[in-house]
Amino acid sequence: MLSFIREKGEISRSDLAAEFSLDKKTVSGAVDELLREYLIVSAGFRESLAGRPQELLTLNGGYGNFIGIDLGGTHIIGILADLSGRPLDRVFFEIRPGLPVEIILDQMKTICRRLMGSEKASAAIRSIGICAPGFMNPATGTSIVAENIPGWQDVRLREIFQAEFDRPVVVEDSSRTYALAEKWLGEGKGRQDFLLADLGYGIGMAIVVNGSLLRGAGNKSGEIGHTIVAPDGPPCACGNRGCLETVASGRAIARDAALGIAEGRSELLKGLTHGKAENATAQDVTIAASMGDPFSIGLLRSAGNLAGMALANAVNILNPSLLILGGGLIGTTRIMEEGVAQALRAHCMRGIFEDVELRVSRLGVDGSALGCGILAAADVFGPV
Amino acid sequence: MLSFIREKGEISRSDLAAEFSLDKKTVSGAVDELLREYLIVSAGFRESLAGRPQELLTLNGGYGNFIGIDLGGTHIIGILADLSGRPLDRVFFEIRPGLPVEIILDQMKTICRRLMGSEKASAAIRSIGICAPGFMNPATGTSIVAENIPGWQDVRLREIFQAEFDRPVVVEDSSRTYALAEKWLGEGKGRQDFLLADLGYGIGMAIVVNGSLLRGAGNKSGEIGHTIVAPDGPPCACGNRGCLETVASGRAIARDAALGIAEGRSELLKGLTHGKAENATAQDVTIAASMGDPFSIGLLRSAGNLAGMALANAVNILNPSLLILGGGLIGTTRIMEEGVAQALRAHCMRGIFEDVELRVSRLGVDGSALGCGILAAADVFGPV
Repeated sequence: MLSFIREKGEISRSDLAAEFSLDKKTVSGAVDELLREYLIVSAGFRESLAGRPQELLTLNGGYGNFIGIDLGGTHIIGILADLSGRPLDRVFFEIRPGLPVEIILDQMKTICRRLMGSEKASAAIRSIGICAPGFMNPATGTSIVAENIPGWQDVRLREIFQAEFDRPVVVEDSSRTYALAEKWLGEGKGRQDFLLADLGYGIGMAIVVNGSLLRGAGNKSGEIGHTIVAPDGPPCACGNRGCLETVASGRAIARDAALGIAEGRSELLKGLTHGKAENATAQDVTIAASMGDPFSIGLLRSAGNLAGMALANAVNILNPSLLILGGGLIGTTRIMEEGVAQALRAHCMRGIFEDVELRVSRLGVDGSALGCGILAAADVFGPV
Repeated sequence: MLSFIREKGEISRSDLAAEFSLDKKTVSGAVDELLREYLIVSAGFRESLAGRPQELLTLNGGYGNFIGIDLGGTHIIGILADLSGRPLDRVFFEIRPGLPVEIILDQMKTICRRLMGSEKASAAIRSIGICAPGFMNPATGTSIVAENIPGWQDVRLREIFQAEFDRPVVVEDSSRTYALAEKWLGEGKGRQDFLLADLGYGIGMAIVVNGSLLRGAGNKSGEIGHTIVAPDGPPCACGNRGCLETVASGRAIARDAALGIAEGRSELLKGLTHGKAENATAQDVTIAASMGDPFSIGLLRSAGNLAGMALANAVNILNPSLLILGGGLIGTTRIMEEGVAQALRAHCMRGIFEDVELRVSRLGVDGSALGCGILAAADVFGPV
């Protein structure tokens, strides 16, 4: 019932009774309990056709605050959110790929500490949600491995952060928390089934089925980044060859950009990176592409086509009604998005292509961090 | 509760009470109702530690019979089954690819008629389940399209069979009914999440999640046969190029066998087809391979590798605990199976590969037809 109140924003007791097919008395009892626990509050009254004005109920944003921390390939983002998932404060750290594990953990703690002391908090901070790319064990709170971060293995995030901040800590894969954010705040609102493609420094995917995340037998679902798209392609950190991540991820695009600059294929990119080819990032490429640089446009279009081909496989298998494109490679320009759409049209089956709506995430780079806050709030709402 | 009794085979009232956390009186009431409706019967008594012997309850196999009809690429199979899905009678027709739609429908009706009059029936025939390859609309009972059957489009199976046999008719995709059969009678028993790969004349897949079929937004999920595995490969009936079905299906293997015979690459296959290369079937190839024919072994191994590569993508995306291999290409020899296993090992991510158990279907060619009978019984058990 609490989830339903959150989704609706504001709702009356009689609408709740109708939704859950309960009698007035049972609903009043349940509502009274939520009011007593300060999980919901009155949002005023509205005129009703029946005569008496009806009281509207809404989530108590001030019930508690939650911290979400997203460890990405090129950044760490912390978000302070209220019970409805609305962000109250934000801390952004850029990180360089290849940083030692200890320094990354220190930076994550610094962000957490800042948010714990935020002046923008609207209530006590109840819990912390953390996401990282790669396999996570939510049961033990361990980040098992993140291929993109050298040396990152069996990092006991829950233990570390619980000891430091004395709050419950939940962990999850970053594409999945991103999908939670889309479901609560973004393009997935009110949708029961969708795919979220997370096209960034790494490539991930989250699957929502019947309103819940499909996590898989070992909590490892969504590894679309390791679809083989180029059997003779470059070696991948996972041990295989030609995985989508080796040719279409932000990491691969940065590598190809450096190579292109060295070969003199883009003056614009060379300028953006101050001539230091090895410092080129995928962000530089999206900026150069949006300025019309043919080499950068080519890189993004090709990456989009390859990602779209792998996504077409996923769409053919799962026949979703909605595919949300998100991640750092999406948003600055529409080129990657167009490459994906082109490949979907080419490779999805007739009928299946018509079933799937393509939307672009508007949560930007904060998606996963927002989702971590929502994940942290899940002990209030139940399984997500 | 009825589904649980079916799964357990035989169970006492007190075990039911424990399973559903209900008091004895509530369970007795529910059991009495099932007994009154003849859905369950007594299976005798067993000694109990508590003292008094406990009555065991079991499904009433004679409650009703159900007909399942599977329209495959090279056969039509009809099964008469009881309430537990156990087969009582069977009719098998071989068909040649390319038969006109009217003749196929006539043969399906003939099979249905034979089973309606079967001497092996244990009860009145309550309903009919029909499956075909390709997209189905269960809501209207229409088979929308079956790429492998020329001219098969918008065939109103429910209307046709309901009018002819005066019984409720349900329709579904044949890989999905196959998965139902595995869930009730085969390798998927007691499993809540698994994939069923249907490697036959066409290639399909069914996905079981949280105990139910994942059907997709437009009931079109599972189209792994249209994973692009050879971007420059042969044109596919679906309109694309290089789909898995064009290189690894029974249809593709039969095509390659005919070519091989014409090129003099297998004396054994030539003999098995009495020199008529164009009549070669995938069944001939599996037989020749099991007799050691190198050309046939090569065809099956390559098909297995390609199917395994596409399945590895699905496994990487869904992280299932079980993958069941079934269909006409599996069973006669282990070569295709080995090819699949090899590709899974090569292309699944570390960790994800370790999570998935590989099993081979033992239902043989009857899998989908058995599942149709189970689908027909679903009006008794509820959604499947």
